[in-house]
Amino acid sequence: MKKLHYESSGDNYKFKDPFKLIALNYSQKTKNNLKRFKRYGLEIVDVSQSRGESAYRIQIKSGKLSDFQLAHVEESIGTKNIIADELATIYGKSFYFNSAIDNAACIFNDLSTCGAFPLTFMLHVAAYPNEWYADLDRWKGLIEGTAAACDMAGASWGGGESATDRDIIIKGKSLLSGSATGIIFPSSKALSEENLRDGDRIILLKSSGVHANGITLLRRELLKRLPKGYKTKLSDGSTYGEALITQTVIYSKLVEEAILNCDVHYAVHITGHGWRKIMRAKKPFCYMIEGIPVPQPIYGLIKKYSDSSEKDMYDTYNMGAGFALFVPRESVQKIMQIAKKNKIQALDAGFVQKGPKQVVIKPLGLTFTTEDMSIR
Amino acid sequence: MKKLHYESSGDNYKFKDPFKLIALNYSQKTKNNLKRFKRYGLEIVDVSQSRGESAYRIQIKSGKLSDFQLAHVEESIGTKNIIADELATIYGKSFYFNSAIDNAACIFNDLSTCGAFPLTFMLHVAAYPNEWYADLDRWKGLIEGTAAACDMAGASWGGGESATDRDIIIKGKSLLSGSATGIIFPSSKALSEENLRDGDRIILLKSSGVHANGITLLRRELLKRLPKGYKTKLSDGSTYGEALITQTVIYSKLVEEAILNCDVHYAVHITGHGWRKIMRAKKPFCYMIEGIPVPQPIYGLIKKYSDSSEKDMYDTYNMGAGFALFVPRESVQKIMQIAKKNKIQALDAGFVQKGPKQVVIKPLGLTFTTEDMSIR
Repeated sequence: MKKLHYESSGDNYKFKDPFKLIALNYSQKTKNNLKRFKRYGLEIVDVSQSRGESAYRIQIKSGKLSDFQLAHVEESIGTKNIIADELATIYGKSFYFNSAIDNAACIFNDLSTCGAFPLTFMLHVAAYPNEWYADLDRWKGLIEGTAAACDMAGASWGGGESATDRDIIIKGKSLLSGSATGIIFPSSKALSEENLRDGDRIILLKSSGVHANGITLLRRELLKRLPKGYKTKLSDGSTYGEALITQTVIYSKLVEEAILNCDVHYAVHITGHGWRKIMRAKKPFCYMIEGIPVPQPIYGLIKKYSDSSEKDMYDTYNMGAGFALFVPRESVQKIMQIAKKNKIQALDAGFVQKGPKQVVIKPLGLTFTTEDMSIR
Repeated sequence: MKKLHYESSGDNYKFKDPFKLIALNYSQKTKNNLKRFKRYGLEIVDVSQSRGESAYRIQIKSGKLSDFQLAHVEESIGTKNIIADELATIYGKSFYFNSAIDNAACIFNDLSTCGAFPLTFMLHVAAYPNEWYADLDRWKGLIEGTAAACDMAGASWGGGESATDRDIIIKGKSLLSGSATGIIFPSSKALSEENLRDGDRIILLKSSGVHANGITLLRRELLKRLPKGYKTKLSDGSTYGEALITQTVIYSKLVEEAILNCDVHYAVHITGHGWRKIMRAKKPFCYMIEGIPVPQPIYGLIKKYSDSSEKDMYDTYNMGAGFALFVPRESVQKIMQIAKKNKIQALDAGFVQKGPKQVVIKPLGLTFTTEDMSIR
């Protein structure tokens, strides 16, 4: 059985890296456009290190408006809603309530990495043909799920775009994406790698499963290998399809309460590149993981049928940890309480220490170095 | 020759109207999520009438932060960049610099309808396959055009998403979209239909051609009827392809300067539904148009080959007017100066008066009533 790996079917960064790099160079210069506000009595500067990160930030200060930051995210669920489309044909009902939550979750969880409190949300649906919008069951799920996700995150849903994009979107398919804004006040409350310290504790927040990454492989190549496709049973009695369609966890309220109640230094949304994302910060720190959450049963199935090693699994999937908070030791107890209140399992999983940039997962004897992650 | 009309090939609102209506209902309730900020010492409320409009707005006021509004837009160029793809095969070079401007222009012009000064921009590229990102000429144009558009509008480009969406995007195609934020301060400077007054002058700002609406019809059905396709000559000697790929005008700087220097009441981005958009405001006003800009040569060609009436043309396309400002008479002269400085032709085209909701284009003997526009 040939090994299945993410890059073989889904994303692949060989072609995108130069694009992203040059885009970063060109976009960097546009920050000067904000200088004009000084003439209007407002001082607005961009937080340059946030450009190209999960959430982009600008800082607004002046005599009139005091010091705060605005965060802006544009993201997409990618192709995960195709699973909802396929399950609808099997189960005869729509799963777009969950797809809508998955989509908004990608956006809100990115927003929360900088500590922004969600303000506004806009939904973008690009479908084809116009009849896509005639499926009442589907679009009601999409609307109700989006509203529910905004309630979970604390954002006001302001509208968006519902387009028909002929000759771009494959017939019967739809691309879900959107954007969100958030506020950080005062600016000093922003989560940023500059705050990351030797000795910080790493709190891993439980995911609900694979969330939105590695999906192309899972719904294509892996699916073909499963004896009963989406109906293949997992060790807990549920099915592969049910596990894949489980709502993504939205961490925004937990992060907001943590910031309001204790000191938080930094955060990472564990998405593409799996646990390698833990070393997202540019600074050379070593991330010592001493305890790991129990991965959901779906990961056992994925590992088996993709012929993956433990390392392959942790370098691709969130393996039960969807978000990481980096906090001083004094904050740990409070964060555990807040997580419990928000019904999200949290694990005081390890610590940050000076040293070469790497993630060491002690219980598994795994180490990821910068050679395992050249891009972001 | 069968008449070609927009709804026959492109968008069609029969299926989307219920979706939009229910989405509006559900999203309306999420405004309550902003109430929590009061506990944090900030008063944030949404501007409910802006929900589902071109730009969604929230108002932020408190002891710490004084009174201002934040505007948020999510939009897409739709399928216009397909023309760039097709012209690339004819001319052997990429036109994505213009596509990038078209895409950002849709977003910034929507943002400017509420009077917001652009702050941040995020680009979303959804393509397939990964090799789409290997075309250096194309992606350099996309990056340079996006940066140029941000410079034109005054926004800082913060990043975005460059995705590969297998099984959603047709092979070789890409969907361009994005989002922007803007600031209005003080809140009283917001452009809103509440400010619209009997006697206000209607200033029409010149478009550069068809911008991004009605595109599906133009690049499919109409194209097939043209003797030489994209190379069909227009009355001014240019070609159909060249006319279609002309950069969309970005009105943001002009609108910003107008707001800073004189009284502006309301604005409309003339997109889908053509000149019917002039009566976008819910209030029952009559819009008397006494002068019209000369439509670009491409409109003559479209009219002829689509067998359209004058009314069909004005109910679908911008016909040379991409944006409308509604201002008190005292502001007209100043706005003309600002338009000239920004190298955008402006026409003091008519006035607003009390009466049944309609757009009367006197020079053409055309009238659009609410029966011509049940949706927004």
